[in-house]
Parts: sequence; structure tokens; C-alpha cells
Amino acid sequence: MHSVAVERVVTGTEVQLMSGLEAEELTRKQGMNSRVILVGAVIVALVGGVILGRFSSGLGGGGSLADIASERGMTVEQAEGALKAFTPPGEYDEYVLVSSGGHSGQLHLVGVPSMRLLKTIPVFTPESWAGYGQGADWSQAILDEGSSNKQARELAWGDTHHPALSETEGAYDGRFVYINDRANGRIGMVDLRDFKVKQILDIPNMQTSHGGVFVTPNTEYVHVSSMTPMPQTENGYADLEDYADLYRGMSTFLASDPDTGRLDTDASFQIELPPYTQDLADAGKLESFGFAFINSYNSEMAVGGNAEGGVPIETGASQADFDYLHIIDWQKAEAVANAGGTEERNGMRVIPLETAISEGILYFAPEPRSPHGVDVDPTGNYIVIGGKLDQNATIYDIALIKEAIANEDFEGTDRYGVPILTFESVVAGQVLLGAGPLHTQFDGEGHAYTSLFLDSAIAEFTLGPKAGVPDGEAFQLVDKVSVHYNIGHLAATEGDTVAADGRYLVALNKWSVDRFPVLGTLKPQNFQLIDLTADKMAVLADMPIGFGEPHYSQIIRLDRLTSAIETYEPGTDPLTFGPPAFATAAGEERVERDGSEVHVYMTATRSHFTPDILRVREGDTVFLHVTNIEITPDATHGFAVPGYNLQASLDPGEVVTLAFEADRSGSFAFYCTEFCSALHLEMQGWLLVEP
Amino acid sequence: MHSVAVERVVTGTEVQLMSGLEAEELTRKQGMNSRVILVGAVIVALVGGVILGRFSSGLGGGGSLADIASERGMTVEQAEGALKAFTPPGEYDEYVLVSSGGHSGQLHLVGVPSMRLLKTIPVFTPESWAGYGQGADWSQAILDEGSSNKQARELAWGDTHHPALSETEGAYDGRFVYINDRANGRIGMVDLRDFKVKQILDIPNMQTSHGGVFVTPNTEYVHVSSMTPMPQTENGYADLEDYADLYRGMSTFLASDPDTGRLDTDASFQIELPPYTQDLADAGKLESFGFAFINSYNSEMAVGGNAEGGVPIETGASQADFDYLHIIDWQKAEAVANAGGTEERNGMRVIPLETAISEGILYFAPEPRSPHGVDVDPTGNYIVIGGKLDQNATIYDIALIKEAIANEDFEGTDRYGVPILTFESVVAGQVLLGAGPLHTQFDGEGHAYTSLFLDSAIAEFTLGPKAGVPDGEAFQLVDKVSVHYNIGHLAATEGDTVAADGRYLVALNKWSVDRFPVLGTLKPQNFQLIDLTADKMAVLADMPIGFGEPHYSQIIRLDRLTSAIETYEPGTDPLTFGPPAFATAAGEERVERDGSEVHVYMTATRSHFTPDILRVREGDTVFLHVTNIEITPDATHGFAVPGYNLQASLDPGEVVTLAFEADRSGSFAFYCTEFCSALHLEMQGWLLVEP
Repeated sequence: MHSVAVERVVTGTEVQLMSGLEAEELTRKQGMNSRVILVGAVIVALVGGVILGRFSSGLGGGGSLADIASERGMTVEQAEGALKAFTPPGEYDEYVLVSSGGHSGQLHLVGVPSMRLLKTIPVFTPESWAGYGQGADWSQAILDEGSSNKQARELAWGDTHHPALSETEGAYDGRFVYINDRANGRIGMVDLRDFKVKQILDIPNMQTSHGGVFVTPNTEYVHVSSMTPMPQTENGYADLEDYADLYRGMSTFLASDPDTGRLDTDASFQIELPPYTQDLADAGKLESFGFAFINSYNSEMAVGGNAEGGVPIETGASQADFDYLHIIDWQKAEAVANAGGTEERNGMRVIPLETAISEGILYFAPEPRSPHGVDVDPTGNYIVIGGKLDQNATIYDIALIKEAIANEDFEGTDRYGVPILTFESVVAGQVLLGAGPLHTQFDGEGHAYTSLFLDSAIAEFTLGPKAGVPDGEAFQLVDKVSVHYNIGHLAATEGDTVAADGRYLVALNKWSVDRFPVLGTLKPQNFQLIDLTADKMAVLADMPIGFGEPHYSQIIRLDRLTSAIETYEPGTDPLTFGPPAFATAAGEERVERDGSEVHVYMTATRSHFTPDILRVREGDTVFLHVTNIEITPDATHGFAVPGYNLQASLDPGEVVTLAFEADRSGSFAFYCTEFCSALHLEMQGWLLVEP
Repeated sequence: MHSVAVERVVTGTEVQLMSGLEAEELTRKQGMNSRVILVGAVIVALVGGVILGRFSSGLGGGGSLADIASERGMTVEQAEGALKAFTPPGEYDEYVLVSSGGHSGQLHLVGVPSMRLLKTIPVFTPESWAGYGQGADWSQAILDEGSSNKQARELAWGDTHHPALSETEGAYDGRFVYINDRANGRIGMVDLRDFKVKQILDIPNMQTSHGGVFVTPNTEYVHVSSMTPMPQTENGYADLEDYADLYRGMSTFLASDPDTGRLDTDASFQIELPPYTQDLADAGKLESFGFAFINSYNSEMAVGGNAEGGVPIETGASQADFDYLHIIDWQKAEAVANAGGTEERNGMRVIPLETAISEGILYFAPEPRSPHGVDVDPTGNYIVIGGKLDQNATIYDIALIKEAIANEDFEGTDRYGVPILTFESVVAGQVLLGAGPLHTQFDGEGHAYTSLFLDSAIAEFTLGPKAGVPDGEAFQLVDKVSVHYNIGHLAATEGDTVAADGRYLVALNKWSVDRFPVLGTLKPQNFQLIDLTADKMAVLADMPIGFGEPHYSQIIRLDRLTSAIETYEPGTDPLTFGPPAFATAAGEERVERDGSEVHVYMTATRSHFTPDILRVREGDTVFLHVTNIEITPDATHGFAVPGYNLQASLDPGEVVTLAFEADRSGSFAFYCTEFCSALHLEMQGWLLVEP
């Protein structure tokens, strides 16, 4: 009897599962009677439910959902979180979070809302599973290009910080993503056709870069500014006594090729900056198009010396009540550079500090208490600053900035002569948020969301009339949510762009404390998913990050990734997207020997390499040109040689070359490292190095 | 009015959310009336629900759950999957899946059922975010130890395949995990106190190892067998004409130190095997304790030669209808080894093939059609074999095997004289499953689950009476579920042990085809979570694997990981768990110069290094001994030097040493690579290399 009742509840629930339209349609069609029958069924069902204590599982519908939640000890809120965050098997997430991999040197792609790690993209660090920097020539070429004469030695890692997705008219266009190496002042470019890195550029005249990365609204330029200044001397050395005189920061505008996304040093320029520590930055858009904004701290120019009677930098750099927001007119800078107002330094056109001042390219505005984040809202009207040691968000208005510049409304200049706009003249408002405001994101409906590191919270506040907020409600704190713990950056869905849509917010938390089980002494970070469509912000899900410290992320709508290709044309070099000379078609496999140099033109297909026996002599230099002749998208093959430290990964159509000295005799069973078929284990051959 | 009704439904649902006991208690206390009131409320609610078409969100309970599912376009089954797979924020998964990282060379830890990647553990491949092999001495020492004279050069990667968690009395004890390098015939040991690798052993006399990894029931030995045989010659070379005579496989029993988990070559031994390709393996337990089982294929001894008029190995190795299940009496082998019945090869005691035969250590049993998986059931009675080109699971009975050995019930011997037990005498049954059976897991209730690569499915079948299955129901197919796609291994919760509990099953699928959005030419793998407690197997969730090919996994109950430590004692070297000579306490920081050798004893704490200015001369050899003096578990610090390719990661209490030649003059801003405090950016100093 009960079970019958229970069967019936499915009917009731199926109605609940209908869309509003369908349900209204149903009620109109069937009239009250059907609803009474339905309700009758539900009465019995719920009574049964109460008496049984639970519905039997697997019958579906709201009843069994609540039942499953109850069995798993979930609260109603947790169950709702599950349904809001879960992406069912085989379905796609609506968004992709493009996250830096921090000191992994890589990029990560995460599905939103499911918070599943979809892919890792190797950029600055060799990655054996991808055959990246493991002997596959195109990737080694990129890593070598990225270890220029500026560097002491070949660099085998980077500290990725700020991904910048390419934009058209201020919105993501899904074509490229740029990512900086905070440790070594480099930048990488990933092509979103095959999601592989195509360039690593070692930027001249700067050593490190932190948050100074953004693209201008049409990706005219990719901006990278230095973090710590470096001596502008021949050998890059200067004693710290000469810090104020010889050390300088740089704001770098790298010209991006619209077709390939490659950065062209010749068409790029730098603007010399005082030796403060330049930090986060953002590009103006719409109302503020043509301007760039860079935070700075340590205008005290503290250099530490805590073992030499000095104070640590953290103390020395936190003395002043104000540091300087750098306001750069990059269109004016471009004109000056093209008019020859630059000097050449290490292959880069540099606009000297004096020129930047005299030409009206660089202005400062005071910003309170060790500023960290600077973010431009979707309308381009407001620039929001968070001061690490402040309690407020400070909001600047681009119209006020332009007006103050026009009126030469200056409080004075810094010691290098940079004009400082009057604080009160350029600030539209301040909002008291809490301890440790850092970064701000936007929802496109006049709301801003600022991370509070010390509070471990996110504060939501309203912007002003120019963002569509009624005058009376402007610049007010409206909501706050706790996160766990120590939030750094946060990323809203398309929240860096003119298309910010206010769907989701992800908190990038640095500590996880007790959120995850103890699995060793290195604790994970914690990404937390927040629903922005609910009345109040609430954490839906935690994503442990147990593979390094992601620093910053951007979230792009999946349907914008239209350049992505399913697979390569047969015989493709990923670096050029063209066929290399050593591409090999089926039937053209061959071995060519020139003295002690052996070139093997191989193919890979399920489930063999051709040739599958390679005979060389000890001392030979061997080049293995391997082409994956598969056309099925998932049919990736690998190629590895035991003991020879050789590993390549070949997507369908891809060509790689492995080069090595056959410096050790023996019989080596090379094999495919990707489980490709039922006879994958048999996809093996013999490299015979005769003594 | 509607909204009131909607409010009320929460009451109804909250009852549903109660446990059976609570609900019965309630009904007893309140009697029918309360239920009528409750039901009345629900009527209004559901009518309201139908009329509104949907409940307004955020009100909780079954209604709003179904409503959220409906809004997100989920089916009832998908919504149930969400609730079954989701682990709410801040709560812990019940299980940890310990997964190989394939050609990433690492290990991954994944929470079950949430399928969240909890941690990556570097083993064979340098990992910059962990400071692993990046200049931190303890990890470099491990990587160097793992690149022995057997190898041509320092190995910078591995192909991890088969994790083996340590066991006591056949159940996981949560102390160590061993992981093999399929590419280079090595094995690593990870200590589950701090979840860091402590040893990489380069196993003599074998070149590669695939699936031959297991621990004996009390971790007396860690077994690794060779995959491809290698020439047992001085220089490891032999022409393929001498394959049958000079190439040999090895079954290696590595003695494990019960306190440290370290593998001791002196106490270990190998058993020489014919030059077939040894594949998966498993340890006997309970009824079969003392035995080891290894699959083999390519008893044809095909070597390929597809460009020399021969056939590819995939064809040559697939001719025979039967290959040989290797049955090894390891206790007998241990006795023979300890009695001196071995010859020493490259520092390892080897039992020659002839001795293994004459002493009754090694027997064969025929196994059909390119066998791949061999798995011993939780009772130890049954050994299940999957043949890649077969349609059946073949189940052997250890009692029948022992009997056949005792009766010398042989069909004959192979060409090397190994006795072959009569197939019919040792097989308890066969079950027709489908195309491409590979690996089998168990639920502890008499059911076995076998992956079907070609069918992309998992088949469930019953074992025999000795596993508690009634005679009439023995060895029957009972259920089948489709997976997506090309499943290799599968892992059931504790399914490799005597404690298999039949809660969850994870399918390790090699291709994902259309399951995830197109994010480049390299496609993810796909882990799929299956609920074993439901009447029929069903996929609950997909987990994309976009970071290499995990090969095999084991799933351990979280509450067994009792050795895990929260953090280190102050001044700990992870390799020894003791304080190294160069550990530095606060106040003891110093610089010691001896000619051109400079030793810096540094400390790291929020938010500075001491000393924070390092002055050396170009050409100096510099040793930076850095101690993280934090005691807060999450307070990990990093240490990086721009341009010098130096990156270390220091957990609280950890000590590392970075050594480098100051071969380039300049001013380098070293810094902390872990976002550790609000003034993390200020945690920076200057390395001055004077020209």
C-alpha cells in the first residue's frame, strides 16, 4: 500500500520538475480535478513518507532527493549547493575558469560551476605527460626562446600569476591567453585553437612581474609591469645604496599580432617608472579607454637589511599613509614612441621617466595604505582600489581624473617630478568593507565584490550612478560572506570585462586549514564557488587545490571558445600549425644515415610504430621524427625510450622530433605511453644500440 | 498566499529530511492530527507548486531541490547523482583514491565520492611548486638515488602505473604507498606520514615494469616484475636473434623495512622468468597466502620487424590461444634464497630459472587469449583472469591449483621446462562477459566487477560458494553498465583487499570522446564514479583528467590514514624526519664564508626572510640553508631567486638547502612563492652578486 503511494509521488514530483510554462499548460488543460488527484496521491505519499520515515530510494523526484540528502546527512542548504554546483555526467559546464598555476608554472582550466579540473596547460615548466620540454622539439624551442641572455641559465620553471584572455571591444574573444612569470619577468602566450603555448617572451629591462598584466580592450597591447625595480645598468648590478638613483620600474606595452597572438618586441615599448614596487594593474575600457592603471607600494623605497640593523621590508614598506596609483595614457605613449621619443635598451624602445612626465603620459594619484588591487568596472567609469592595510575600498572616477589632469589639479609631485593629482578631486567615494581589502570583481549590475584577506570574507557593495546605481544607494556595503580561508584574488564570471554577467564568483583562498582531511604537511589551497544569483551570497562548493598555488583566474563563457579545434590536420607542427619537413605519411617511413647521424622517419598508429626495430651504433646522434597518422580526435599516442629519458606526446596529426646521443649500448623497449587500444601494450618496439 | 503555502512545505520536507527513527518518534508523539495538519500544508504547498509551476528558490526541502534540478535542466537520475556524489563544503570524503599519474610520473589523491583532486605527490618528475628536484637537497638526493648506473643519464620523469598501498593482514594500514615506473623499471616509496616520497629504487636486471606490482598481505615484500624482458648480459645488449636465449624476465621481491617502509636490496631477491612479456600480477591472501600470480603474454616471443618483412608485435604476440599464468610460491623462493640458492647479479640475489623449476617455486597454468588482468578475490580462493581478446572471465581456484601441483597434474612444460598445470584441473568456472575483459575488482559479498575495454562497459558477476555465493548462482553475469569510454582499470573501495566493502566503483576510462568540451587537441581521460549500493550499477559523476593518463588506482578508507601528521617538528629534514645539521633557529641566522664557499643559515617566517640581504661575489659557490620556523600548519613558505632557476617549498618546520654557483652578477629580488600573509608581497629580499 505504501509502496503504491510512493510510486505515485513520482507523478507529483514530475510535475514539480516541469518548467513553469509546462505546468501552467498542464493545469489549464486538466483543470482542478487532475490537480486534486495529483494532490491525493501526494497526501498518501507524504503520509507514507512520514510513517515509513523515508521513501524507498531510486524512485526519483523531490521526495527521494530529500531522502538521499538526509541519508548523506546533508542540510537543505548543502543539498541545494549540490544541485547548483553539479554538472551531470556528459554535460558541459557553462564557464571555464582560466587559472594560473602559480609556481607550477602552468595554466589550469576549471569547469564552472562543477569546479572540475578540465585541463592543465604546460607553459614555463617541462611536463612529461605532455612531452613538453622532454625532447619534443617545438616545445623545447619555446622553452629555449624563453631563456634569453637576460637569464643566468635555461629556466625550468616559472611562477604564473595573472592570466589575461584576449579581448575584442572589451569582451573575451576566446582566441589567446597570456600569462606572466612573476619570478623571471617573462610572459607566455597560449593559442586557444589547440590550447598549447606558442611563445615565451623574456621581457627586457625588468626582472620580475607580479600583477601588472592585462590586455587593452582590443588586445592592441599586452601590458606587463615590473614588480621589484631592477638596476638599469650594463650588468644589472647596483648596490642598494644606489637604489633611488639606478633602480627603475617598467610599464611594458607588448604589441600583439592580431592573427597569431605573438608578441612583437620591435613594435612594443616600455615606460620607465620610479623604483617603487609596481603591483596590480588594469586597462581602462569604454569611458576610460586609452588609460592604464598600476598600483604601487613601497614608495618608501625600503630595501630591508634586518640582519644589518635595518628593519624588514614588510615594515619599511608600510610606513606611508599613501602610495601612488599610476595613471598612464598609453595612446599618448604610443604616439611618443612612434615619434621616436624613446631610447633603445636591450632591443626595447624605452620612454625615459622624464619624457613620460614632460609628455603628460604618467600621472599619480594618492592611494591609501599599501594598495594592492586596482580594478576597472564594466562601464569603465570607476577604478576601485583596495589597500592591504586599509579598511576601505576607494573608488576613483575617470571623469574626475581627466578633469584634474586638464586643470593641473595637483597636490605636488613625487621626488622624480611625477605630478600627483589631488586625492579629493579624483575620488568618487569610499566604502568601509573590513580588514585587508585586496581585489574587486563586478557583476555588470552596479555591484562590486571585494576580497578581504584579513577578514576571510567577500564584501559586496554598490557602485555609483554611472554604473546604474540610484544616487541614494551609491557606494554602500550590501552583503558580506565568509570564505575559508585567507582569500587572495576572486574571479566573477566575465567579471573583468564589459560583459560581466553576475552568475558566479570564485574565491581563491590561500589556506584551507580544516576544510580538507590531513594528507601530509603541505596543505591544499581552496577555491570556493559562490552563487551571485541568490539574494545573499553563499558558498556552494569547495575545490581543494593540492598542486601548487593558483594566483589569479579569469572566467570565460564556454560558448566564446569558438577557435578551439577538435584535432590537427595530418602532419602538423603545433608551433606553426603547418607541416614540418620531417612529417611522415604512412608508407614513407624510412631510416636515413649520414655518417654518425641517423634520421628515422616514423609513424605511429594503433597499435604499432613503423619501423618498430631501430638499429643504431653506440655514439650515433639519433633524430626520431615521429608522426601520429591517426585522424580520430582521442587517438593520442606517446613515445618513450627506457633509460634514455625520452618522452613525447603526439596528438592525432602531430609531428615531433626527439634527438639524443646513443651514448649507451643496450636493447631498449620503446613504447607508446598513452593507453590507445586493446593492444596498447603491444605498441612497442626495440631500439638496439650496438656496442 | 502562495508564498505562505510555499513557506509551509518546508515543514513537510523537514520531516522527510529526518531519519526514520526521528520521523517515527514524531508520528508516535503527535498522532494522526499533526500529520493531517502537515499533509494539509503540503496539499496547499503542492497545489501552489503546480499553479506557480515552481516553488520559489532557496526555501529548502524536497520541493526546492526538485525545483533547482528542474531549473538546471537535470533529470531525476542526474539530481540523485548530484546528491550522492557531492561532498558539502568543509566536509570530508569517506575515501581517498590513490591514483598513479601515468607519464606525469606522480601520484594523485582524489576524494571519493566527490571526485575532487585533493593532492598531487611528486615522485619521479621534478615539480617546481613542491620545490621537488628544484634544488631542495632532500628531493634531489632521492631523484639522484633513482638514477643509478643502470640508467644512461639522470632521469627526469617516470611513467607511474600501479600504486600499492601497504597492508597488514591483507587490509590497508595507511602507512606507505609504493608506485612503479613502467618506463624505467623503478619503484618509489611514499611515506603516508607527510605524503612525500622517501625512496626511488632502480631495480637491477630489469628494464621496464608494467603491472607486476603488489604488496604481500603484511608488506613482507613489494613485488615488481619486468614487462619486456632484457638481455642478461654485461652491457644489456643482445641482438633480437638471441631473444629466446639471452633475454629474461624477472619477478622481484623487494624486502620492505617495517618501520621506515624503505626497500632493502640486500634482503630482496629475484626469480628469473622466461622471456615472455610479464604483465599484471597479484598476491595471494588468506587461502592463497604465500603465492603470487603473474599474467604473461607474447609467449610467441614476437619481436616485431614490420619494416623488415616481419609482422608488428601486436600481431605476432596474439597468435597463441593460451599464454601462461605464472604461479609463484614466494615463501619457498624466500627459503631457497636464504639457503643460498641464488647467484648475485648487479647487487641482487637471483634465483635462476632452472632452480625456480627444480625447487617447485614456479608453475604455469594456461590462460586464454592475451591475458591482461589477474585479481585475487577477498577470500583468497579465486583468481580471476581477463583476456584482452577473450569474451570470458576465467576463474581459477587456489585449492585446485594446490591439488594439481601436489598431483603433478601437468599438461606438459613450456620450452624452458616450466610445468604447465592442466587447464581443466585448476579452473573453477568461466563467465561470458563481453568484448575485451581486462581487470576485476570485488565487493566482499561474492561479486566481481570486470572492465570491458572493447565494450566500454563493466560487467558484474557472481563468484562461487567459497566467496559465499549459493551453488546455483555461482559464476553468473548479473549486471552490466556502460562507461564512457575505453575503460582500462577500475577501482572498488578497498576492492584489492580482504576488507572490500562494495560502496563505490571508479572506472578509469582512457578516452572521453564527447563527454567534455573541446579544449584543445589533447583530450582528457575520464574517471567515472559508480554507486555499488544501488540495485543496478549507475554512473553518478564524471571526473575529467586533463593532466596525463592515470593508469591504476586503489581506494582506501579515509579513517585508515592514521599515520598522517599535521605538521613537522621545528627543523625537520623530510628525508630523515630528523633535524639536519644546518637547521637554523630564530636568532641563529648567520653567514659563514670559507674562501669562495658561502653558507647562509636563513629562517623564513611571516613576513620576512632573515637575513634579507645576501652579498656574494661573482664566482662564489653559495649554499642557502633555509628553515621555515613557523609552527602553524598552513604556513608554508617558498623561496625563489629570479633568473637563477631556484625554487624551494618549505612546510612549517621544514629545512631545505639550495646550492648554486653565483655565476652571474646582478641584483636579484628573491621572494616567498607561497601567498602566506597580507604582507606576503613584502616577503622579499635582495641577493647581490657583485661583479
